[in-house]
Amino acid sequence: MDSRTGLPVVGMVGGGQLARMTHQAAIALGQSLRVLALDPSDGAALVASDVRYGQHTDLAALREFSAGCDVVTFDHEHVPTEHIRALAADGVAVYPPAEALLFAQDKRAMRERLTELGAPVPRWRPVTEPDELLEFGTELGWPVILKATRGGYDGRGVWVVSGPTEAAELVGTLRAAGTELIAEERVALRRELAVQVARSPFGQVAAYPVVETVQRDGICVEVLAPAPRLPEEVALRAQQLAIDLATSLGVVGLLAVELFEVIGADGEPALVVNELAMRPHNSGHWTIEGARTSQFEQHLRAVLDYPMGDTALTAPVVVMANVLGGPDGGMSIDERLHHLFAEDPGVKVHLYGKQIRPGRKVGHVTVLGDDLEKVRARAVRAAWWLREGQA
Amino acid sequence: MDSRTGLPVVGMVGGGQLARMTHQAAIALGQSLRVLALDPSDGAALVASDVRYGQHTDLAALREFSAGCDVVTFDHEHVPTEHIRALAADGVAVYPPAEALLFAQDKRAMRERLTELGAPVPRWRPVTEPDELLEFGTELGWPVILKATRGGYDGRGVWVVSGPTEAAELVGTLRAAGTELIAEERVALRRELAVQVARSPFGQVAAYPVVETVQRDGICVEVLAPAPRLPEEVALRAQQLAIDLATSLGVVGLLAVELFEVIGADGEPALVVNELAMRPHNSGHWTIEGARTSQFEQHLRAVLDYPMGDTALTAPVVVMANVLGGPDGGMSIDERLHHLFAEDPGVKVHLYGKQIRPGRKVGHVTVLGDDLEKVRARAVRAAWWLREGQA
Repeated sequence: MDSRTGLPVVGMVGGGQLARMTHQAAIALGQSLRVLALDPSDGAALVASDVRYGQHTDLAALREFSAGCDVVTFDHEHVPTEHIRALAADGVAVYPPAEALLFAQDKRAMRERLTELGAPVPRWRPVTEPDELLEFGTELGWPVILKATRGGYDGRGVWVVSGPTEAAELVGTLRAAGTELIAEERVALRRELAVQVARSPFGQVAAYPVVETVQRDGICVEVLAPAPRLPEEVALRAQQLAIDLATSLGVVGLLAVELFEVIGADGEPALVVNELAMRPHNSGHWTIEGARTSQFEQHLRAVLDYPMGDTALTAPVVVMANVLGGPDGGMSIDERLHHLFAEDPGVKVHLYGKQIRPGRKVGHVTVLGDDLEKVRARAVRAAWWLREGQA
Repeated sequence: MDSRTGLPVVGMVGGGQLARMTHQAAIALGQSLRVLALDPSDGAALVASDVRYGQHTDLAALREFSAGCDVVTFDHEHVPTEHIRALAADGVAVYPPAEALLFAQDKRAMRERLTELGAPVPRWRPVTEPDELLEFGTELGWPVILKATRGGYDGRGVWVVSGPTEAAELVGTLRAAGTELIAEERVALRRELAVQVARSPFGQVAAYPVVETVQRDGICVEVLAPAPRLPEEVALRAQQLAIDLATSLGVVGLLAVELFEVIGADGEPALVVNELAMRPHNSGHWTIEGARTSQFEQHLRAVLDYPMGDTALTAPVVVMANVLGGPDGGMSIDERLHHLFAEDPGVKVHLYGKQIRPGRKVGHVTVLGDDLEKVRARAVRAAWWLREGQA
């Protein structure tokens, strides 16, 4: 507890935009997020009062950081599980626990566990040598997907393998570099969906509406909430799946389940689990204005074992668009903001305090309304204004 | 400009809850509010990264604070106008300017200027000796209102004077203490209203919907947005009045116009200006969730000369209730929060990080919905849970 306020201290390992936005939510709850950052220029370090510095791979730094925190949680999934176990053994409340976080860190462990649980997953197999991928591709037909089991994000660590020659070369190169791999069926997807739930230590789980995530070059560019034209029955199935997974895996905090919507053998929509994330997630940024409780507040409520907040939409349609750094067009981000605000007084902007580099997520925009096409066009246009200016 | 982000630095003098909530809004705009606080336990000092310490009455401290700020603004109205003029003469962009802020600092100057402008005000006069108040009370009939021209808030600095004996005593005592005074007619009010506008240096003005403010013992306890059963024509008149005042007085940033709704000589509702505030204001806390652009973001946009944001309501009915410190009932604020969240998952809570003292504003709650009576009951109940717990 913070003796000045009588309210808890949550420590978040990692100082990126997720910690930055979690700090905003913490302020409303009377708290101030304690952040373990790498650098004073990290997005959260720029705005939070209680910032410590250290590597998330350094157990001594994690121990020092945790002292005086009521709960420790994460802005990313890169803290080694052995360090999380060591903190827990010290008596620190660390959420999500190592046993759960493993399934967001290691795609092979995730696929194995989900297969055991009977959750819908693509056909897959571990790959330790080229022949295993050749066999898999021959059996399923090319192309197939090859994934590094750890460390990938925004399309990195994922390869579409077109045939035997590429398979042999790629597996050889990656295995020589020590990369652990799995192969997956290339799913004939209609679109990508995501569903977020938050679970508390007590076991309460709250599910957000299912959203559609629009990807370009492996990067999420838009999120449409709720997912348009999704049959109620499928939406309920997706929420139930996420609730079941959060419970089975022992998640505490947020769980984002990224899903493929496919056409099943019966011609009806079916769902396949793509990835899991156990933290606030890009697919939930729309909740800041678009849900009664933002994912950032919900994550804090979950890890603190507060009762969960209302996840209802605040408008019929909500669209989030990521702002990616564009080429240097001679117009500053501040000028772009002026023009955008003149263009559309209703768009909500979130900038992360990052140096702008081409393709880097430097912020997001959210638009709310009644008509999907209009709302989406406004969000896309706003993201474009911030990226390109008038170029 | 902050060289790390390419975005402006706004400095706010004063580290209370208004600066705390302005910092939250600044984060979304890619900024980090620079705060001039008195103490590390100030609400904003607990949560902002860039906190300086100094007295708002110390010109040297203000000058040092202003260096490197793109704009300087205020969380309260207590900075001496001569200091604001000195900063402006140094070339600092200080908003609102001294010429405008005077009318929020000094009730006599405000009454004089509004009278000149033909704005609706109660009958009033300056009082420098007891006989002037006696004459005023005799002319209008007792009771009358006596006000200190400076420094009052939350009912302090305002006296209801019942008759000649009390008048003579009170004026004698206050004048002996050097207090400047005005007398005002005691208006037969139906209720209190407030309207906020934001004005940029460019001259753009955006008006929020008119709200009803519910007072108890001189303290605002609830705000109902929009003001229930207010004829559209009266609402428009109130907004036009606030726009005209912001323009005539040269306000930059937010202006809150507190109004009395009275029954005019014609039997129709009429408006009388009570007070002016030039900063984010308690009557606008509902805008955080209840308007498309919060008053805190709007104040930043105004002082930075960004185009104003959309002021539309996000729900048909929004009710804000202040959380006042209660007697020590043995239950911590953290426990109260648990119970409240279990009671009502949809209420939005804002705690200011303050030590709890009886009667002190330590936070507020906001509820949104369709039905005024239900929404209001939930907000009142939530504020009660945080104040009293289960006592």
